[in-house]
Amino acid sequence: MKTLTKIAIAAGAVALATTAMAQPKPENFVKQRQSALALIGWYFGPLGAVAKGEKPFNKDDAVRATSYLVPLSKMPWEGFVAGTENVGNTKAKPEIWSKAADFKKAADNMQTEMAKLAQLASAGDEAGFKKQFGAVGGTCKACHDDFRKQ
Amino acid sequence: MKTLTKIAIAAGAVALATTAMAQPKPENFVKQRQSALALIGWYFGPLGAVAKGEKPFNKDDAVRATSYLVPLSKMPWEGFVAGTENVGNTKAKPEIWSKAADFKKAADNMQTEMAKLAQLASAGDEAGFKKQFGAVGGTCKACHDDFRKQ
Repeated sequence: MKTLTKIAIAAGAVALATTAMAQPKPENFVKQRQSALALIGWYFGPLGAVAKGEKPFNKDDAVRATSYLVPLSKMPWEGFVAGTENVGNTKAKPEIWSKAADFKKAADNMQTEMAKLAQLASAGDEAGFKKQFGAVGGTCKACHDDFRKQ
Repeated sequence: MKTLTKIAIAAGAVALATTAMAQPKPENFVKQRQSALALIGWYFGPLGAVAKGEKPFNKDDAVRATSYLVPLSKMPWEGFVAGTENVGNTKAKPEIWSKAADFKKAADNMQTEMAKLAQLASAGDEAGFKKQFGAVGGTCKACHDDFRKQ
């Protein structure tokens, strides 16, 4: 048990300083969601060059990126807990909580469109993938417009 | 094309301010790897309470966590590019680059053990899952001991 405790603490200390037992602090929830959104930007952004034809479509690269993006698309939402509205450097608008159903719909839209992007990547459907990039990006933009401070 | 450009910029601006065209800056690589490691801590840490028997094993929860952890386990390494040794608040030791083969082996070990954890979760093997948590945690600790500043 002692070894497991040490390992749990080491794991939790990776970056968020959560332990197996501790309830995460508000700033840890903000860090969780910002980390997930940062990684979505990291893997989604470069696909824009492919969508615009500035970089050739490569099926393996598209499959790899979307295999990360689909799980990442599911992660940020658990970080938007009540009590984190004004924590740290968050750009979260109060509408995330006052219009929770709309926010959930916007989040669901992104996950749905991202899953379609992954399917098109796996199918090697270059034209479909390029078009679907725009559909996913549209869901990013719609949510940012409504729920993220400029 | 204009719409795609806007979407690509919006996507990139999510958090890292990367655009479809721009080469990421050194600090963005640091943020990429720290984001991935933070999320690994977020989803792995709480499993420690299950491994220690302080929280009941729940197959659905274990499957969900490991479905995130397996792709996350593959992400941090691309962020450890040359030229990011002393950027921002990194705790990266110089050995990451001077002993690159050892670092890769440590990273590979974690990915291998994490994949096994996911298989045990899917199989609903509670005893195996609890034991394997320790094996994964051991790979975290080994890498931190050798390659992360205290």
